[in-house]
Amino acid sequence: MGHFKVNEKDIFFILKEQLNYGSLCKLERYRELDEETLDMLVTEAIKFAKGVVEPLQEIGEQQGVVFEDGQVRCPPEFREAFKQYGEYGWIAAARSTKYGGQGFPHMMRIVINDQMYGAAQSFNVTPSLTHGAAHLIESFATEELKERFVPKMYRGEWAGTMCLTEPNAGSNLAATRTIAIPDGNQFKIKGNKIFISAGDHDLAENIIHLVLARTEGAPEGVKGISLFVVPKIKVKPDGSLEGPNDVICTAVEEKLGLHASPTCALNFGDNDDCVGYLCGEENRGLPHMFQMMNQARINTGVSGTTLGSLAYQNALAYTKERIQGHDIAGRKPGYVPIIDHPDVRRMLLWMKATVDGMRSMLYTGAYWSDLALELPDGDEKRHYQDLLDFITPIIKAYCSDMGFRVCETAIQCLGGYGYCREYHVEQFLRDVKIASIYEGTNGIQSMDLLGRKMRINNGGPFKAYMFQLDDFCRKNQDHSTLGEEVASLSGAARSLEEVALELSDLSESDPLLWASHTYPALLCFGDVTTSWRLLDMGIVAQHAMENGKESDFYRGKVIQAKYFCGATLPLTLARLDTCLRKGREILDIPEEAF
Amino acid sequence: MGHFKVNEKDIFFILKEQLNYGSLCKLERYRELDEETLDMLVTEAIKFAKGVVEPLQEIGEQQGVVFEDGQVRCPPEFREAFKQYGEYGWIAAARSTKYGGQGFPHMMRIVINDQMYGAAQSFNVTPSLTHGAAHLIESFATEELKERFVPKMYRGEWAGTMCLTEPNAGSNLAATRTIAIPDGNQFKIKGNKIFISAGDHDLAENIIHLVLARTEGAPEGVKGISLFVVPKIKVKPDGSLEGPNDVICTAVEEKLGLHASPTCALNFGDNDDCVGYLCGEENRGLPHMFQMMNQARINTGVSGTTLGSLAYQNALAYTKERIQGHDIAGRKPGYVPIIDHPDVRRMLLWMKATVDGMRSMLYTGAYWSDLALELPDGDEKRHYQDLLDFITPIIKAYCSDMGFRVCETAIQCLGGYGYCREYHVEQFLRDVKIASIYEGTNGIQSMDLLGRKMRINNGGPFKAYMFQLDDFCRKNQDHSTLGEEVASLSGAARSLEEVALELSDLSESDPLLWASHTYPALLCFGDVTTSWRLLDMGIVAQHAMENGKESDFYRGKVIQAKYFCGATLPLTLARLDTCLRKGREILDIPEEAF
Repeated sequence: MGHFKVNEKDIFFILKEQLNYGSLCKLERYRELDEETLDMLVTEAIKFAKGVVEPLQEIGEQQGVVFEDGQVRCPPEFREAFKQYGEYGWIAAARSTKYGGQGFPHMMRIVINDQMYGAAQSFNVTPSLTHGAAHLIESFATEELKERFVPKMYRGEWAGTMCLTEPNAGSNLAATRTIAIPDGNQFKIKGNKIFISAGDHDLAENIIHLVLARTEGAPEGVKGISLFVVPKIKVKPDGSLEGPNDVICTAVEEKLGLHASPTCALNFGDNDDCVGYLCGEENRGLPHMFQMMNQARINTGVSGTTLGSLAYQNALAYTKERIQGHDIAGRKPGYVPIIDHPDVRRMLLWMKATVDGMRSMLYTGAYWSDLALELPDGDEKRHYQDLLDFITPIIKAYCSDMGFRVCETAIQCLGGYGYCREYHVEQFLRDVKIASIYEGTNGIQSMDLLGRKMRINNGGPFKAYMFQLDDFCRKNQDHSTLGEEVASLSGAARSLEEVALELSDLSESDPLLWASHTYPALLCFGDVTTSWRLLDMGIVAQHAMENGKESDFYRGKVIQAKYFCGATLPLTLARLDTCLRKGREILDIPEEAF
Repeated sequence: MGHFKVNEKDIFFILKEQLNYGSLCKLERYRELDEETLDMLVTEAIKFAKGVVEPLQEIGEQQGVVFEDGQVRCPPEFREAFKQYGEYGWIAAARSTKYGGQGFPHMMRIVINDQMYGAAQSFNVTPSLTHGAAHLIESFATEELKERFVPKMYRGEWAGTMCLTEPNAGSNLAATRTIAIPDGNQFKIKGNKIFISAGDHDLAENIIHLVLARTEGAPEGVKGISLFVVPKIKVKPDGSLEGPNDVICTAVEEKLGLHASPTCALNFGDNDDCVGYLCGEENRGLPHMFQMMNQARINTGVSGTTLGSLAYQNALAYTKERIQGHDIAGRKPGYVPIIDHPDVRRMLLWMKATVDGMRSMLYTGAYWSDLALELPDGDEKRHYQDLLDFITPIIKAYCSDMGFRVCETAIQCLGGYGYCREYHVEQFLRDVKIASIYEGTNGIQSMDLLGRKMRINNGGPFKAYMFQLDDFCRKNQDHSTLGEEVASLSGAARSLEEVALELSDLSESDPLLWASHTYPALLCFGDVTTSWRLLDMGIVAQHAMENGKESDFYRGKVIQAKYFCGATLPLTLARLDTCLRKGREILDIPEEAF
């Protein structure tokens, strides 16, 4: 029994019936594509994920990584899979064809990652980072560097990383100390980085690090950070390999999960011979890096969603098969499958709704990213960029924290077996926890959402979000089946707006009190967005049923929306109230009183 | 840096200032004890936990257990520690002196376990089960069996287990198939048990299994189950060892956590030579076992609380030391310890309050157990037995689920380091998860609470709980500092009462809807009980301050109560409302729609 259970129907329902993703093909960039081609890509991604990637999950978990003589080795099957992954074009499916991409819509990267992360999370870290690193070079580096590095990375001949964190600069990049000293038209890099995902391995013949460092005399803080391309093996201008660069892996972390994904400490330039190339403008490293960071944040939401989804699917399969106990209402004689027990069903329905709502949130955000990037300049493009800006921290934090909660609940459905390795869900729990931490902790996401995202572009992102949400509520307030739930959502939206605006004011007048409320407020944004996406799906499904597409599948979409809104939104409202508490206990408690 | 950080002051505050546990010495059974002696016992337990047990945690995690040639081996250090543990009297500190116990109050077992589980959870499983098994024999077996088995178990020469679960009888003991065939004045046992904690190991020269099985011709279901004493090595009437009994360990589970605690599959009587002795009355095995189960349920609450407590203490230490980022309000120059960041402080204060409230709930329940067991017969004794009956499933489920949540939050406080092995908190998360599952899943606890516990003794347990809670609110409604929070608690208590009574009616009229609401309702009981205990501590602390004991320690008790009530009770009220929802989505969703 494979652990990788894909609910293809749910995925296509969101893509086709909810989002009508084929309409993206009207955009200039995609005019040679059509919906059928997109469908095929999704089907192929699922096939590849099942056939090539899924077996790596168990292999990776069994073997882990080995760190010996300063070199990290992954299970040999990973190397072959990475090669195929690159050759099939999965790394750069959404990148332009100029440097070897396939030119599919940006959102397809999310849809593909949803499958690949689900099939083997610890494997997919490497191709995903390779994409991000190469995309940074493609976006900001000189034409010469692009040609030298990008095509090989998109093909998976070389891998990539992002090197931000340092021993004393985790969440606070302003404290970055790695330095870059000019050396002709290149730089010598010197410094130590930690927590570098896929920082060393043997999946590819070279690893291209994208490194944040300071040039000499750069301004203090985040405005003095530049971005550098630093290969593990030096690369000649013609793209051939020259010999080791001065990059040393000094340690590999032992972690709660992701055992086959090496998390490395890297020393750059211990022997003063670490060559790097400036990528983009000097002192603009952080804004450049944020392109990758924002993508990575959405990808973190993918991890949370896909691992939650897997956990749910595995729990569902188990509860249908596991026979135990009598039906509490005597509807069936003898012992029954535990899915018949209401408390088990409660957990299943909550997981189903949460996972489906998160996936819809994720795909919706990904869909917006295409409109934001590919619409012609103007208000509409700006609107979608605003939406994307606003929803990114919600996706990152909510999908990771709730993904974790879904995995926890799945374990509970399996009882004692959920605690045992052979049933996989305990691994999903371990693997998913990091998603709440990396790419900016969820606490930091909440400050981004209720702070910067409320202010930038004259509050445009928040206004765009509220407009889109209110528009949905207005249009559907009299819906025959889900009107009551839409009214609840509308009420929550009003409360959310009030809280967000009040917190925004507070961020200036009383930043300490503000920062003690941002995380609960982010959770409320997540609840509301999930409810909204679920209701939207429910309404689409109801419409389909009214047009003769009667089936349990569609009924499930309506039911999950009703349940989630009914069970969640009252708590969301209560939590929103607590976000306006004036109590200062968090701030007033003396340190010695903890 | 040891991982085992005990907040001795918090422990003694609950024992002495909140509960006045010395007053137990007025009970006939404890008339030779005094508070000072109890204090010494606690201090000694902490000392032993630190000195002897704590080192086992890291050893156990590194080495785990080995299963070879049908024999389980634990790290050798475990054997020596188990010997000392028995010799020092920790197994049977609360048992009567007749069979080798120390005669301390029953509640001391909980206080001791709080320390020992915290020091090394995977080690303490064995002595804790040994106590439970021996106590069962002491309570129900013949004098001859008591003398043969109990003293050696209390001294730790032999260990014990409880064998309930079978491959098709996990939560549903009615499906038990293990059989017992009369053979002179003993029985031959035949059957397979799984998930047996400490089912095999080398910590003691013998293991005494307490096994549920059916005698021939016994009634169907739970009323035909008997309890048997089944040694791993046969024991002659004089107590000397005779040779192997027919009990075989066939497998050891690979688990999410508790790596040094063997979870075994045991076959009894594969060769028709498994000797067992009836313990107590035939067909009364389940009621007998429930003595151990109820204790084990409280102990499960200990695991949740103590691992949560450790996680909190470790997170606290980290956040005081870890320097990162500027103070958001510019109160200090330069970079600051992350405990200064409000979102980190929010997590710390929530953890502190949750852990302290749970510990108080636990110790209060344990205190009630002494009154229930040792008061002379009468209404007062009955009242405390009712209270204990009612609070047991709350302690079991709430403290385990919230303990898990605290561990999750602690990881978050440590950021990337929280995900790494060397910082321990990831292990606490893995270890604590089982507490939500074993000894009856938390879903089952919720049905026990909102079902059986509402009905037994004419609703006495529920009435006792509400009486005690209302009495607290009435007495403190005008409290100078915490009156407002007491009023909130009082409001929550009314809502809780209404919901519990309505659900109790529903359990008859609509058991399916009832069972889909019991778990959320249990959470509300947990929130309310925690708030109540925190307010009680806050009021005691305020009183101490008003009497000149001004200190941050006492201030912390007041602040945590204010915060927890303010941030939690509004959500509790909202959740209580959802428990009365008439929506039947959980029940109506077709299986194919999942």
